[in-house]
Amino acid sequence: MADTITPRDQDYAQWYQDVIRAAKLAETSPVRGSMVLPPNGYELWQNMQGALDAMFKATGHRNAYFPLFIPKSFLAKEAEHVEGFAKECAVVTHYRLKEEDGDLIVDPDAELEEPLIVRPTSETIIWDTYSRWIQSWRDLPLKLNQWANVVRWEMRTRLFLRTAEFLWQEGHTAHATEAEAIEETRQMLDVYATFAEEWMAMPVVKGVKTASERFPGAIDTYCIEALMQDGKALQAGTSHFLGQNFAKAFECTFQNADNEQEYVWATSWGVSTRLIGALIMTHSDDKGLVLPPKLATTQVAIVPITRKNADNQATLDAAYAMRDALEASGVRVTVDDREQYRPGWKFAQYEVEGVPVRLAIGPRDVENGTVEMTRRDTSEKESVQREGIAETVGGVLESMQAALFESARQRRTDHTHVVDSYDRLKEVVEAGGFALMHWDGSAETEAEIKAETKATIRCIPFPGQFEGVDTEEAGIDPVSGEPSERRVVYAKAY
Amino acid sequence: MADTITPRDQDYAQWYQDVIRAAKLAETSPVRGSMVLPPNGYELWQNMQGALDAMFKATGHRNAYFPLFIPKSFLAKEAEHVEGFAKECAVVTHYRLKEEDGDLIVDPDAELEEPLIVRPTSETIIWDTYSRWIQSWRDLPLKLNQWANVVRWEMRTRLFLRTAEFLWQEGHTAHATEAEAIEETRQMLDVYATFAEEWMAMPVVKGVKTASERFPGAIDTYCIEALMQDGKALQAGTSHFLGQNFAKAFECTFQNADNEQEYVWATSWGVSTRLIGALIMTHSDDKGLVLPPKLATTQVAIVPITRKNADNQATLDAAYAMRDALEASGVRVTVDDREQYRPGWKFAQYEVEGVPVRLAIGPRDVENGTVEMTRRDTSEKESVQREGIAETVGGVLESMQAALFESARQRRTDHTHVVDSYDRLKEVVEAGGFALMHWDGSAETEAEIKAETKATIRCIPFPGQFEGVDTEEAGIDPVSGEPSERRVVYAKAY
Ligand SMILES: [Zn+2]
Ligand SMILES: [Zn+2]
Repeated sequence: MADTITPRDQDYAQWYQDVIRAAKLAETSPVRGSMVLPPNGYELWQNMQGALDAMFKATGHRNAYFPLFIPKSFLAKEAEHVEGFAKECAVVTHYRLKEEDGDLIVDPDAELEEPLIVRPTSETIIWDTYSRWIQSWRDLPLKLNQWANVVRWEMRTRLFLRTAEFLWQEGHTAHATEAEAIEETRQMLDVYATFAEEWMAMPVVKGVKTASERFPGAIDTYCIEALMQDGKALQAGTSHFLGQNFAKAFECTFQNADNEQEYVWATSWGVSTRLIGALIMTHSDDKGLVLPPKLATTQVAIVPITRKNADNQATLDAAYAMRDALEASGVRVTVDDREQYRPGWKFAQYEVEGVPVRLAIGPRDVENGTVEMTRRDTSEKESVQREGIAETVGGVLESMQAALFESARQRRTDHTHVVDSYDRLKEVVEAGGFALMHWDGSAETEAEIKAETKATIRCIPFPGQFEGVDTEEAGIDPVSGEPSERRVVYAKAY
Repeated sequence: MADTITPRDQDYAQWYQDVIRAAKLAETSPVRGSMVLPPNGYELWQNMQGALDAMFKATGHRNAYFPLFIPKSFLAKEAEHVEGFAKECAVVTHYRLKEEDGDLIVDPDAELEEPLIVRPTSETIIWDTYSRWIQSWRDLPLKLNQWANVVRWEMRTRLFLRTAEFLWQEGHTAHATEAEAIEETRQMLDVYATFAEEWMAMPVVKGVKTASERFPGAIDTYCIEALMQDGKALQAGTSHFLGQNFAKAFECTFQNADNEQEYVWATSWGVSTRLIGALIMTHSDDKGLVLPPKLATTQVAIVPITRKNADNQATLDAAYAMRDALEASGVRVTVDDREQYRPGWKFAQYEVEGVPVRLAIGPRDVENGTVEMTRRDTSEKESVQREGIAETVGGVLESMQAALFESARQRRTDHTHVVDSYDRLKEVVEAGGFALMHWDGSAETEAEIKAETKATIRCIPFPGQFEGVDTEEAGIDPVSGEPSERRVVYAKAY
């Protein structure tokens, strides 16, 4: 009874939608571009939040909250920023509805003097606040993070990957020196990379964006890029060095130790519910969702095989005893003892929802001291001893987490190619994958390639990330014929 | 250097604002009616969230997320609901800005076909969704909670108590029977009361609202009411039995076990950042914030008394050792070893910010094996042995939690009066307090009293909440002279 899932090789985009629907992660809503996140989807986001929040705190950040609305005049203060966001923002113009002739209408007498923008990102309102909070070098660094919803009016939306409203975190930090701000930008990129690899089991390339792909208002945008199963790249997180742009726009200065006024240096960095899309497209299969155990809300589902009109107490007791043992060792476990659903239905449900380990226990198992264990990623089934079940399951969860990462890493290696001609580039990005090719550093060449192939420079990678390839070696851009300082990563992207 | 705080008996409203500013809990923003929550305020909210979320899960609820925007037509579907919220809502009418003659303007070509309302509460969008999710009795009950920001356009705002944007949780549940929905409504009121009393150390009266104070669209609104230090009541949480109103408005039916279609029964319930206002006005004093230890982000601050140009290592080591011991026993503790601030400055800061326990350790303490412990609520200072510090501090935190509750309970008892005449009612509510008076049950009497005294019926209390008073005994309404079935709680309110 689990919904049918279109196989990946038949229609990848449809497969993605089917997995989301069948695993109950998200759905479209009557509000154009806005998602509904049912519990399976929202709780996955909460699990990600928990892990990230701890990493932010461990690196000295605190959480705060700033207004949802941004005065129109604030957006206008940083030229590139407004250029980037004005074209796709939700504008609040009125503060009241009224009834007229039985209809509910926007009250024309309740127009705001200044329209408010629903935040697409919060640099402006935050730097306006920082300009009041920061006076002296003693107030620096100021390292805050906000968990929030944001809105960017997107015309073509796709669940998790591109929606009008999405959930995210945005870090905003203020520093006394350029070097410290750049260090922070790099540190938070590392935090994201660690989260992606250790929690999401998703390998990423770290690098810096070209000028044309930068965040509006940033001096440099650092990013992590992952390769999805269809060979397309997905930008999974960005960390921006903002220089003094926002400090200048909002007159945010501080008195340094020599009693001189200086503009404050800024960073911002964010990841969003987009990560759930990345997670799905990294690990899931034609049977549905596959989740890395560290992020699964339910890591183990125990299904007692009961019979109608029979005495099932011994089976249920054995199931509860396993649950208690697993819980005691910190495993997130549930016993599904609902009577209105049959075991087969439950198995199918846990499979499609991506619960990492399924334990089925019937009367024979009760007698034999065994339980049937099924691992979601490999579908391997085996009968294991109930004695020591916590250790057995703990080991499987760990090895599944590692195997998912290893398999994604291998896939990325298989689809990363050193490319030395334009034809080969076209081949590689068309088939799907990362192409490591020389680039002359010009926006023209970048634009030309994008126009012809739809591939973009995902990032100028940090050194030493591709085994056996020295991306730092100089060469020739095969498209323009001009000299190139290093290879960059090309791919089609989400 | 701690800001000056106006004493309560001089100007209570100013005292409230001063505490918020000095403890860095919130501030007004350039966006009318919207707060900025600096870390001290936001983290307090997160601590509340953590406790409440666990209680919601323990009672079988899961978290989900629904769109920020609500189509105007949705709001119109439930008559009382639209009546209640249309007059104070933020309306999104456009989705783009553009530059014209160097100005940034709302693009008239980007008007939405249907205006969107920034959610003031989510019944409508959620019941539209539920009507798709619920088909059969097997889909019930559906018990979800949402953590979200909401917007209600308030003209006169006050930090935490009444703001245009605020943070809250809203539970929305769907049931097959009326009885089950009512049971849920009552259960969640109990959850709120438990949270208020056990976590916030704030005693509350449980009861039901009169018709005129009901949530727009509810059949019954249950509430918890607390008494602030100035004798005004504060509604701290509400739980609504919505009957089938929203199910009917959104055509949400289910097939029952007899294969008949029935409308679904609904509840909703919420608490918000308003609770932080209640917390402040329940426990704080003229020196600043006082926090119940269970909700304090930092429960213990250790201040090493170091000297310039001296060897402070032994003092610092002793401070770190205490921190480790306290951390190991689960206490949230910080060592303030910052060199740019003097100990006296730190003491003042932790006092105004409401850190429950302060530990000061100097060279003499290091020698003597002691530490100076100061408890925030009583300002009691004593020298205690460092050996066994975790147990000592643990005991103090527990006893402070209990003492705060007891003191608030005693204050409420002192200011709760059985009232049998209109004159006495005026006296009591003017002086500040709960008046237990008979009510004839008519909206007219209620309105008359409100017009003359500004006091409202805070709730029709559940039986047995006031020692020595049987609120269930019949009598005469002293204002109208009509018979009354029971006493109700009158007070002026926030
Ligand atoms: Zn390939
Ligand atoms: Zn009194």
